[in-house]
Amino acid sequence: MRKIITVSREFGSGGRELGKRLAEIFGMNYVDGEIAGAVSEEKSLYETYLSGKYESGIFGYPPSGAHSFSCIGSVNNSAMMIARQHKIIREIAARTDCVIIGRGASAVLNEFKPFRIFVYADMPSKIARCRSRADGGEDLSDKQIERKIKSIDGARKKTHELYAAYGWGDKAGYDLCINTSGADIARVAEITAEYASEYFKRNSVQGE
Amino acid sequence: MRKIITVSREFGSGGRELGKRLAEIFGMNYVDGEIAGAVSEEKSLYETYLSGKYESGIFGYPPSGAHSFSCIGSVNNSAMMIARQHKIIREIAARTDCVIIGRGASAVLNEFKPFRIFVYADMPSKIARCRSRADGGEDLSDKQIERKIKSIDGARKKTHELYAAYGWGDKAGYDLCINTSGADIARVAEITAEYASEYFKRNSVQGE
Repeated sequence: MRKIITVSREFGSGGRELGKRLAEIFGMNYVDGEIAGAVSEEKSLYETYLSGKYESGIFGYPPSGAHSFSCIGSVNNSAMMIARQHKIIREIAARTDCVIIGRGASAVLNEFKPFRIFVYADMPSKIARCRSRADGGEDLSDKQIERKIKSIDGARKKTHELYAAYGWGDKAGYDLCINTSGADIARVAEITAEYASEYFKRNSVQGE
Repeated sequence: MRKIITVSREFGSGGRELGKRLAEIFGMNYVDGEIAGAVSEEKSLYETYLSGKYESGIFGYPPSGAHSFSCIGSVNNSAMMIARQHKIIREIAARTDCVIIGRGASAVLNEFKPFRIFVYADMPSKIARCRSRADGGEDLSDKQIERKIKSIDGARKKTHELYAAYGWGDKAGYDLCINTSGADIARVAEITAEYASEYFKRNSVQGE
């Protein structure tokens, strides 16, 4: 039975770090920006995925891994792009155990029974997290960062609701929703991995 | 620093069992029906609480611990009763570490920074759980059980939204939302206890 973890997250809640750490703990592939890269480059996905050379993307972040607040302007919710993303996500899931960040994976991978996490936090925590990792965002006021967070999450919500049965962040569409306000993500990852292990164990028994 | 866990839950999701197990793991008091008992008996709370003789209540279940599906008819959402319940909950929280099931505790105990859990599950799991523990509900069809579940949760939601800042089950009002569909609650309790420990550790450091 394939082991897939999907991480959906509010911007600034530490979801990406959680996803990376889960991938490390389980020794799984970590899938994020390369999906958008594959879409924008019109390449066959698996080729793109294996090459591992796409780290930024349409929804994504600069290759350095640092976050700027400029990505939202390039979001393009065309039905074609979303359909391609979903095809790519399914291709990846069919081939390898992995942690997938965002991109509607929680809604799209039903047949693989992924362990679906949603990560959220209160606004002060999200602003603090953005500040601590931002590159070039240091001159923004808290109000400006808050507006960016809301704008990015608003776009995620809109995109998600074009195709998903449950609303973005509606707990019914997830297995675990984690409030990371003030939390140490490394420790959250360790405990979340235990939940995920239980989930995989259960599904593998049912699948036998 | 006081340690309080609140457990809000969809009917049939295993929230009560989770709460009981958490109380055992932490050696905390478990607070459920006695609150409603105290309200209906017009007793001073702490007296009622200490006596431990109230196991059923207005929102509650028969004293045997078995669940019938008849409780919904006696729900009385009067403002007076809710206010009394909240006073009682605050009195309990001020005196003792505890796990409190329902009764709006997640919204009412802000100043104690409780670890707030919401437990939910998909409908087939909830129906199965109701069936496995029901006393006198064996002759109900799945459809009938589903209607009862929705009716009870509808009442919880309505009551909650009379006074709470966040909607009932809206993840923003909780620290952890757990989907128990098909899960072993004993194992869920062990892992959830780790989250709660982390949370208490964090708050006790901040509180120093």
